[in-house]
Amino acid sequence: MAGEAEKWVLMVTAQTPTNIAVIKYWGKRDENLILPVNDSISVTLDPEHLCTTTTVAASPSFDSDRMWLNGKEISLSGDRYQNCLREIRARAGDVEDEGKGVKIAKKDWEKLHLHIASYNNFPTAAGLASSAAGLACLVFALAKLMNVKDDQSKLSAIARQGSGSACRSLYGGFVKWVMGKDDDGKDSLAVQLADEKHWDDLVIIIAVVSSSQKETSSTTGMRETVETSLLLKHRAKEVVPKRTLQMEEAIKNRDFASFAQLTCADSNQFHAVCLDTSPPIFYMNDTSHSIKLWNLALMKQLFSRIISIVEKWNRSEETPQVAYTFDAGPNAVMFARNRKAATLLLQRLLFYFPPSSAADLDSYILGDKSILKDAGVQGINDVEGLPPPPEIKGNIPLKKCKGDVSYFICTRPGRGPVLLSDKSQVLLNPETGLPK
Amino acid sequence: MAGEAEKWVLMVTAQTPTNIAVIKYWGKRDENLILPVNDSISVTLDPEHLCTTTTVAASPSFDSDRMWLNGKEISLSGDRYQNCLREIRARAGDVEDEGKGVKIAKKDWEKLHLHIASYNNFPTAAGLASSAAGLACLVFALAKLMNVKDDQSKLSAIARQGSGSACRSLYGGFVKWVMGKDDDGKDSLAVQLADEKHWDDLVIIIAVVSSSQKETSSTTGMRETVETSLLLKHRAKEVVPKRTLQMEEAIKNRDFASFAQLTCADSNQFHAVCLDTSPPIFYMNDTSHSIKLWNLALMKQLFSRIISIVEKWNRSEETPQVAYTFDAGPNAVMFARNRKAATLLLQRLLFYFPPSSAADLDSYILGDKSILKDAGVQGINDVEGLPPPPEIKGNIPLKKCKGDVSYFICTRPGRGPVLLSDKSQVLLNPETGLPK
Repeated sequence: MAGEAEKWVLMVTAQTPTNIAVIKYWGKRDENLILPVNDSISVTLDPEHLCTTTTVAASPSFDSDRMWLNGKEISLSGDRYQNCLREIRARAGDVEDEGKGVKIAKKDWEKLHLHIASYNNFPTAAGLASSAAGLACLVFALAKLMNVKDDQSKLSAIARQGSGSACRSLYGGFVKWVMGKDDDGKDSLAVQLADEKHWDDLVIIIAVVSSSQKETSSTTGMRETVETSLLLKHRAKEVVPKRTLQMEEAIKNRDFASFAQLTCADSNQFHAVCLDTSPPIFYMNDTSHSIKLWNLALMKQLFSRIISIVEKWNRSEETPQVAYTFDAGPNAVMFARNRKAATLLLQRLLFYFPPSSAADLDSYILGDKSILKDAGVQGINDVEGLPPPPEIKGNIPLKKCKGDVSYFICTRPGRGPVLLSDKSQVLLNPETGLPK
Repeated sequence: MAGEAEKWVLMVTAQTPTNIAVIKYWGKRDENLILPVNDSISVTLDPEHLCTTTTVAASPSFDSDRMWLNGKEISLSGDRYQNCLREIRARAGDVEDEGKGVKIAKKDWEKLHLHIASYNNFPTAAGLASSAAGLACLVFALAKLMNVKDDQSKLSAIARQGSGSACRSLYGGFVKWVMGKDDDGKDSLAVQLADEKHWDDLVIIIAVVSSSQKETSSTTGMRETVETSLLLKHRAKEVVPKRTLQMEEAIKNRDFASFAQLTCADSNQFHAVCLDTSPPIFYMNDTSHSIKLWNLALMKQLFSRIISIVEKWNRSEETPQVAYTFDAGPNAVMFARNRKAATLLLQRLLFYFPPSSAADLDSYILGDKSILKDAGVQGINDVEGLPPPPEIKGNIPLKKCKGDVSYFICTRPGRGPVLLSDKSQVLLNPETGLPK
């Protein structure tokens, strides 16, 4: 190791998107390596609206590996972080920074400690796969810092060991996590089906439930499903393989009707196997916190209302306008076939879920706010003036649920991980290697 | 036909129990004959608390077949009634009533019209398989009136054509509906696994949700599941055959732990295949009546609260105390392993679901009220004084839901159909053959 001893800090900052599965991952065949029981397919969300930014730094002045998430120091001692750090270090290459006069040989990386600072541009509590974006970003940034030569797909297999769905965040657009066959997990990795420009008509609207609920542990849930659900095996072996091929075809052909049908069906089947678990998941995730059960009931209610709104509208049209998908987190994700459908969807969502009177519209619709303008909604008065959707005709509209949704995010399919060169986005002090 | 022409009325009155499935029936392989995709197993409920009483009458003075349900005339023109009437008439035998001086030859039955009056001793709206009890009672009473020689199992195959689960109400105790293989449905019938005395420790408590909701059409739901659920086939072909054998074994050995595990798992799996249906059932049963969606949300909430209460308690004990099972109707059925467990269950239910202040306890706990006494609850003050169940320890108890339950029914496994000789229970006027 050369350079001005003990003084230099070498840093890299990266940004990685989150992703939402349209063919769901639920159930591991190997808990340690995080190998799934079936393939899954996801859409990467635009990092402009939802992403993790991570700065990783190495310096001979660091005493130990440390990490800060959203400004708060967290432990790196868990297996998942350790697995990722070990795998990346094992692949490190020679690095030379001429500007700083730093030269690090491959073998030196084992001795260098790391500082890591990570920041989500969306609430962690929203359960929007923050751990997926976070672990993907960690692996991507470290690989850049340490000059790892492995391609994106191989990096995805490392990120997978940090958080299963993280592997899908190594690519933009439409991504498949191939379950693989090998016992060592080497072939369980992500591949890109199509980039984000392939199908840029799609608009994604996310409803986040007003709930302070933390992301529930999917590890425990998955284990219980694998152990007790008699339907999961059939889903993994018979249903998903066929459905994955159909979904790939739908994406390739930008066939929204098939995409919508498969997305909704797979979301519902995922919840079905959770219900087929003993005791059923989502009712019982955390029995010691009864307050959660109440939130879960609210969430379930939001899900069923959104299913009802979407199904009614789709049926009244010649061809599906919107697809829905729900993960374990307190949010609902909807795909609109195009901008026009997104505008009409947003009108419906605002009609059924108006903001609580205190909220202003600007903090109620996040992300791509231009859809709000297209929808003819400029202020709270316009929300109140929205007519009932024509498809409900003379029927009593669903009870309006003011305040049930915390906010909406309007977004679109987005790009994969990138390095950031803008110094304002660097999260660690370049001199001390501590959070700014 | 002999006798005082045009004057006589020949009548029979019968009482038939309802039943609750512990291995669920969901999905038909033949909609017309009502042939199921899998075997099912049920427990017959004590007719003292839940039953249908039916009087059937024949007279040369009747102009047409007519029926009254709970005092209100209803149409007999539906296929299901017509199938039952046709099948029973085809099997009629010679009848002689010496007291009345009436002689009816086998062939005469085709010409005689029938009057039928039926009455449920429980609210039809509660969805407690009233059509099962009703059709079973119709078939049983007509078979007696017309001197049909077929045994109970053959009668069950006729009742099945009126309402699938009706076939299981032809027996008391523990009953299996064998799905059969024949295309004509002759071997799709009920058999008794054990009578009601075999396992008389069991106590059954039913929570009826405060909802004016009608029983939803299971025919449509089943059809949609058969057409769209990729999990149903696996359930029917792989899961239920094994589970049925295990349940038969559990019943034979009065093995409550297995009985409870299988009952809860099958209830959850039934709801799982409903969720795996496109669009998912229970969210969407009747989209034109949005008010229903709200009731369904309430119902779902009751289900999840009861699952939570039962699972927590079972886990805190060495062995399961209670099993739960939910049908499509707005009620939850619980089995307690014995009277002591039932007492403790009732205390828990009253703690979490106290009656709304207006209700008096006497109309809140129906059926076998002696369990209320065992539970040390004599009045509303005792309900308010109930301590939180010990298994929740220091945790915040679930929010109490006053008024969410309309009433509870305490009952037990009960006997099969019987003829009633008590004249006060006859529903038709013996002179006119019209409802009393």
